[in-house]
Amino acid sequence: MTSDDTADPGATDGAAGPGGGADLHLDLPAHGARRTALARALREAVRSGRLAGGTRLPPYRALAADLGLARNAVADAYAELVAEGWFTARQGSGTRVAEGAAPAATAAAPAAPVPPAPAGARHDMLQGKPDPASFPRGPWSTSARRALAQAPTEAFGPGDPRGRPELRRALAAYLARARGVRTGPENIVVCSGFANGLRLLASVRPRDWAVEEYGLPFHHGVLEAAGVRPHPVPVDGGGARTDLVPARARTLLLTPAHQFPTGVSLLPGRRAAAVEWARTTGGLIVEDDYDGEFRYDRKPIGAVQGLDPARVVYAGSLSKSLSPAVRLGWLVLPDDLVEPVLAAKGLRESWASALDQLALADFVECGAYDRHVRRMRARYRSRRDLLAAALAARAPHLRVTGISAGLHAVLELPPGTERAALAAAHAAGISLDGLSAYRHPAARAQAQAPATTTAREGLVVGYAAAPEAAFARAAEALATAVAALGGADTAQPASS
Amino acid sequence: MTSDDTADPGATDGAAGPGGGADLHLDLPAHGARRTALARALREAVRSGRLAGGTRLPPYRALAADLGLARNAVADAYAELVAEGWFTARQGSGTRVAEGAAPAATAAAPAAPVPPAPAGARHDMLQGKPDPASFPRGPWSTSARRALAQAPTEAFGPGDPRGRPELRRALAAYLARARGVRTGPENIVVCSGFANGLRLLASVRPRDWAVEEYGLPFHHGVLEAAGVRPHPVPVDGGGARTDLVPARARTLLLTPAHQFPTGVSLLPGRRAAAVEWARTTGGLIVEDDYDGEFRYDRKPIGAVQGLDPARVVYAGSLSKSLSPAVRLGWLVLPDDLVEPVLAAKGLRESWASALDQLALADFVECGAYDRHVRRMRARYRSRRDLLAAALAARAPHLRVTGISAGLHAVLELPPGTERAALAAAHAAGISLDGLSAYRHPAARAQAQAPATTTAREGLVVGYAAAPEAAFARAAEALATAVAALGGADTAQPASS
Repeated sequence: MTSDDTADPGATDGAAGPGGGADLHLDLPAHGARRTALARALREAVRSGRLAGGTRLPPYRALAADLGLARNAVADAYAELVAEGWFTARQGSGTRVAEGAAPAATAAAPAAPVPPAPAGARHDMLQGKPDPASFPRGPWSTSARRALAQAPTEAFGPGDPRGRPELRRALAAYLARARGVRTGPENIVVCSGFANGLRLLASVRPRDWAVEEYGLPFHHGVLEAAGVRPHPVPVDGGGARTDLVPARARTLLLTPAHQFPTGVSLLPGRRAAAVEWARTTGGLIVEDDYDGEFRYDRKPIGAVQGLDPARVVYAGSLSKSLSPAVRLGWLVLPDDLVEPVLAAKGLRESWASALDQLALADFVECGAYDRHVRRMRARYRSRRDLLAAALAARAPHLRVTGISAGLHAVLELPPGTERAALAAAHAAGISLDGLSAYRHPAARAQAQAPATTTAREGLVVGYAAAPEAAFARAAEALATAVAALGGADTAQPASS
Repeated sequence: MTSDDTADPGATDGAAGPGGGADLHLDLPAHGARRTALARALREAVRSGRLAGGTRLPPYRALAADLGLARNAVADAYAELVAEGWFTARQGSGTRVAEGAAPAATAAAPAAPVPPAPAGARHDMLQGKPDPASFPRGPWSTSARRALAQAPTEAFGPGDPRGRPELRRALAAYLARARGVRTGPENIVVCSGFANGLRLLASVRPRDWAVEEYGLPFHHGVLEAAGVRPHPVPVDGGGARTDLVPARARTLLLTPAHQFPTGVSLLPGRRAAAVEWARTTGGLIVEDDYDGEFRYDRKPIGAVQGLDPARVVYAGSLSKSLSPAVRLGWLVLPDDLVEPVLAAKGLRESWASALDQLALADFVECGAYDRHVRRMRARYRSRRDLLAAALAARAPHLRVTGISAGLHAVLELPPGTERAALAAAHAAGISLDGLSAYRHPAARAQAQAPATTTAREGLVVGYAAAPEAAFARAAEALATAVAALGGADTAQPASS
């Protein structure tokens, strides 16, 4: 523990920027053990490569002020990470991230370390999060109360690994109507979110997966933890190149409605090609329909599952449409996968709350879910329009893509400029990620080999999470930050 | 598919007992895909060894009548299991369980296969289940609604792997008050039940566990799935022999308040010995306080965790006190285990519903949880008294133990009689298990070696799950069924 200023490692050399401001963005919980959370967040920042080896940490005082913590709490967290080997501390040169502290992450990461987001970012434009302020508290409460009152007694007993029958019936009807999924309740297995479903599927099909070249590192991590090392499939302006699925792949993970994160939808011919691949090779498609409800510009695109329910697992969840806090998702399975997935689910451990399941069944059946989705679709659409307008006004030379659906857009950038754009956005107090962060490490590694695999650069701009009142300012701030960057014309993938 | 009677495999030999009655108990869901559930239940019965190789299955017609299914549904399920190799079908001799269909289970199971429980059992005396009809729907609804209305906006965002701060605060105060646990909110990690918590702990401490000689096979399975092969510790009338923890054990799993399933509480000297073991060896105790709230006869026994919070993980859940359908549990961790457990928890997959967490925080803080526990304690206590009285009246020579706490008792039996007692109970329409089923396979295997390890026989009688109105009849039925059995005097373990 440190109690005098001269021992403050960043303060000694005055190199921490104007006002001692720390250029280190950390997400701490608003309540609870923030002190412990700080050490965890720092560790995670090193582990993920966000804090590169050699980076100088901000002074205790500056970080403490940014985070609203006592200075000693920051000093303690630094000391802890020094003791654990993540940081190094040297008299006169401050605390720095140890070189090689995150070797695994370093190996897989793109050559240039991503600059850190600012502490106390004012605008949340991270992708993947719906607006938490829009949770329909009243209607959900009504459904929860009604469902609890009407539930049969056995609902409070040990339960069925498939999930509540009420919910599976409601989902079968809803998914058929809204997403063109062909199923009955008996082919649905409720899970606690897409990652849970993906783990179940990976344990049932433990090898030879193909994944889109761009995707969520978290999902790749789930597969890797299950021992699966997936082969990347190129992605272009028509979605995944389903004509180029590696020969030895047996399972193909796709985001057909709105490729994540590039935002394109899979061309009809490629949807057919994917199903044809599955039929001729005996393969399985896993369709991650993570934001299929939010389509703005065109007729909703139905699920690929509807083309061949025996060859496609359809997966959905509440994480984008309602809230990731509810922890509910679902798999729609071909007949022969139901039993194996239930066996993988095992004895109750990762089952979802029966109370939430009953509430959701009522919420869907009384029409509240549709109303919520419609309301959010209108809200996100107007945010998207606002974002596109701001960018068109201030940075007309940059192309915004992936905007026909979902909760995020991609601001395409010329090669070699993503890092500078991220730094500009972060300096403007905006939290967001670059497109490069979502490229599969294996695609990076084999970048030379398949000519069709092209690295792209861009910013992935989430427009759902920011508070409604602050969104216009956020969009303006982003547009201003990127206005000075060059055009994206040279960055178009050759294959689209 | 079969449509005429002569093809009904059991009907051809008339050996299925009076009225074609099937002696096969299967738990099918009340609603939904019961047809598919039947095949699953049959498969599970074979896999678990409950249906031994060679056992003749009941005729389609009889099982269909018992389960309220179409005859063809049963015929289809049989055909499916024949196709999968679980069953064999021979003209004239009916359908039988294939020999060696469940080799793993057979190897671990006691020598004598447990006779199957009756189809359509009239009395549910299986252990481990609270009364589902007693779920406090009104008070829970009130808490859920209030919690939802008062939750901060961030509660509907991605969340904290520790769990909601509101719940961790409420639990820290409650566990201190009700169970003598010494902790603060920052040492609590919310999980989705004890099995989930146990898996997290096993992944953090992946080797050299010691477990009580008697315990839940499901928990042993969780450990084994994590690659842990635990060493058994003898159990006698004073609980686990904590003076005999194997030298190489690093983690010790205990049920101190109410040893599961024998029902004894750990003697004060052995509690101290366990903590002493942990201190001198650097070991860790995992305290599974599965039914600690339900103590009837004596002053509540506090948690062992209170003796040394740095050496004991305290684990609890709602599964006995409220309902297994809510899927909420908690770990109270020593400081140095918080970070590793959070790392093991990973990115959101197995997190518990934030809505349920908020509801439970309110439920605990407004006193509704205490009121529910008090109400259930009174109800279970009167059931226990009724059970003890029925057994004292009809089978006074049999000893009932483990009745000072919890939701189950043990009816001790003389060596060699458990199988007959189970059969008698099943014949009387009662579902329950024998004590032998809970003995750790490793203890069976090394039965000769440590003289202190003694096999016991008995019935584990759950008195919580049956409907309130039916319980008196269930108790009478059990007492009548076992009245003819010999006394347990010769079965007392020498070491107690």
